[in-house]
Amino acid sequence: MPKAVLSGLKNHPVKISAICAMLDSGGSAGRLRREYKILSPGDIRRSFITLADASPAIKKLFDYRFQSGSLKGHNFANLLLAAIELSTDDYGKVIKTLNHFLNLHHQVLPVTLDKSELYAKLEKGKIIKGETNIDIPKHNPKLKIKEVFLKPEARAYPPTLKAIENSDLIIIGPGDLYSSLAQVLLVKGISEAIKKSKAKKVYISNLMTKNGETNNFTVLDFSKEVEKLLGGELDYVIYNGKIPSAKRLTNYKKQHSELLELVKFDKDLNKKKFIKADILANSKSITHNPKKLSEVILHLE
Amino acid sequence: MPKAVLSGLKNHPVKISAICAMLDSGGSAGRLRREYKILSPGDIRRSFITLADASPAIKKLFDYRFQSGSLKGHNFANLLLAAIELSTDDYGKVIKTLNHFLNLHHQVLPVTLDKSELYAKLEKGKIIKGETNIDIPKHNPKLKIKEVFLKPEARAYPPTLKAIENSDLIIIGPGDLYSSLAQVLLVKGISEAIKKSKAKKVYISNLMTKNGETNNFTVLDFSKEVEKLLGGELDYVIYNGKIPSAKRLTNYKKQHSELLELVKFDKDLNKKKFIKADILANSKSITHNPKKLSEVILHLE
Repeated sequence: MPKAVLSGLKNHPVKISAICAMLDSGGSAGRLRREYKILSPGDIRRSFITLADASPAIKKLFDYRFQSGSLKGHNFANLLLAAIELSTDDYGKVIKTLNHFLNLHHQVLPVTLDKSELYAKLEKGKIIKGETNIDIPKHNPKLKIKEVFLKPEARAYPPTLKAIENSDLIIIGPGDLYSSLAQVLLVKGISEAIKKSKAKKVYISNLMTKNGETNNFTVLDFSKEVEKLLGGELDYVIYNGKIPSAKRLTNYKKQHSELLELVKFDKDLNKKKFIKADILANSKSITHNPKKLSEVILHLE
Repeated sequence: MPKAVLSGLKNHPVKISAICAMLDSGGSAGRLRREYKILSPGDIRRSFITLADASPAIKKLFDYRFQSGSLKGHNFANLLLAAIELSTDDYGKVIKTLNHFLNLHHQVLPVTLDKSELYAKLEKGKIIKGETNIDIPKHNPKLKIKEVFLKPEARAYPPTLKAIENSDLIIIGPGDLYSSLAQVLLVKGISEAIKKSKAKKVYISNLMTKNGETNNFTVLDFSKEVEKLLGGELDYVIYNGKIPSAKRLTNYKKQHSELLELVKFDKDLNKKKFIKADILANSKSITHNPKKLSEVILHLE
């Protein structure tokens, strides 16, 4: 789950269930995943830290990364999540206790407890294995991703399905379309549960395209792909209407990342479904402003 | 602090402050201590786990030891304590939060937050550096330990001094005389605080001698050495009066570990100060029975 949404909503009178991708394969989380055949602790760690209402010292502890020695690069919380999975056959119970440790008023849920792998099929048939190889492409980034799939099949964690069933609002994104969101939506049972739910389904569009994953994408392209993964229609698509200065975009251009095309926004889109708002942060990087974003979300009809 | 005392007393209506040695240098704790220049997390970890009133899954997590890979041999809780020390400048606050996590009704305290090293001076002048080299002797075990000292000086952690000041009963041991107990008693401020306290001072004698550390020691030898380290007199010495079968002692004999001499017990010792009781566990190894031990402790005048 993206930090902007969680941190924006966490102090409002809502109860968040953050459903976390478990197949990330880069960095410390990826190393632990490969070495110990565990679920990836990366996304779940970030959600815990964002939603925690613990003291600054405890937050610093959970976010601490060893800087040297044999543990170099490992986040403490990744080691914690690895130890949970290896020490207990009751992941859920331990996750619940962690919620309590960190004084969460919300809940953090793994999308699945099954070990699986994310694959992407490119134009011309090449198959890419693993989240980090899709996220940081080694292939020709001009080749479009035609399909993403999980292998072997991963089944949804039952408490996660229950959380979807009981929700009033389902928020998808922002996040890397294929390397992040697809990991969650492709888990068996998740898209069915979302479709069956009476909750409004909201997609928060990314601000920028991503090289090798969503080159030249518009807001409409993003939302159509999400609907394809979901196998159903979204009720709302929230997208940014505030154009940052050219200077702020310079570094992104170097990495072949572009601001989502704006022309199509206003011309072709159904204004009731596609909600344009200033949700841009004032920071140097192009990110969502948690406060602005939460206000748009909480004012949906 | 020894497990037998903590586990025996923890469910009685008493409030325990377990004061932990911080200079252990063997195993996973020692590796982390050397690699990250931290305090040794070994003793404090064991006290936490023994006093915790957490769920079995959480206890298993805190006691989990990685079995393979780059983390092989590390206890999760050792990694936790390392991360605490490296991530925060408020060790005390984090320890307090851990108490809360683990639902402790007691408290676990480091004897010092200073980095120091334990040394032993043998007969003929040889000096041994480090707890584990005293604990598992590489030197001629027939040479007696003449003196133990810390270098550089370590000062007591103030909340630990406060806990001593406010206590009604101070329990020392059982534990390795030089490699464990001395580590605590030699910290500047500790023995002074114990002497100044109005609490009864109780020493629980070891059951067996230890090769290279306490060969041929009697109960009286042990208690005299404790009094020397303390610089003051003990009120009570509790020692075991139950003789285990010769069969149970076989493995110990192989390691040059003997049952403490019994003759001197009954002949020479002041019966009011030296309390003989059956405090032996029924296990294969020669250990204290927590329940029997706690009953003797709680019935002291």
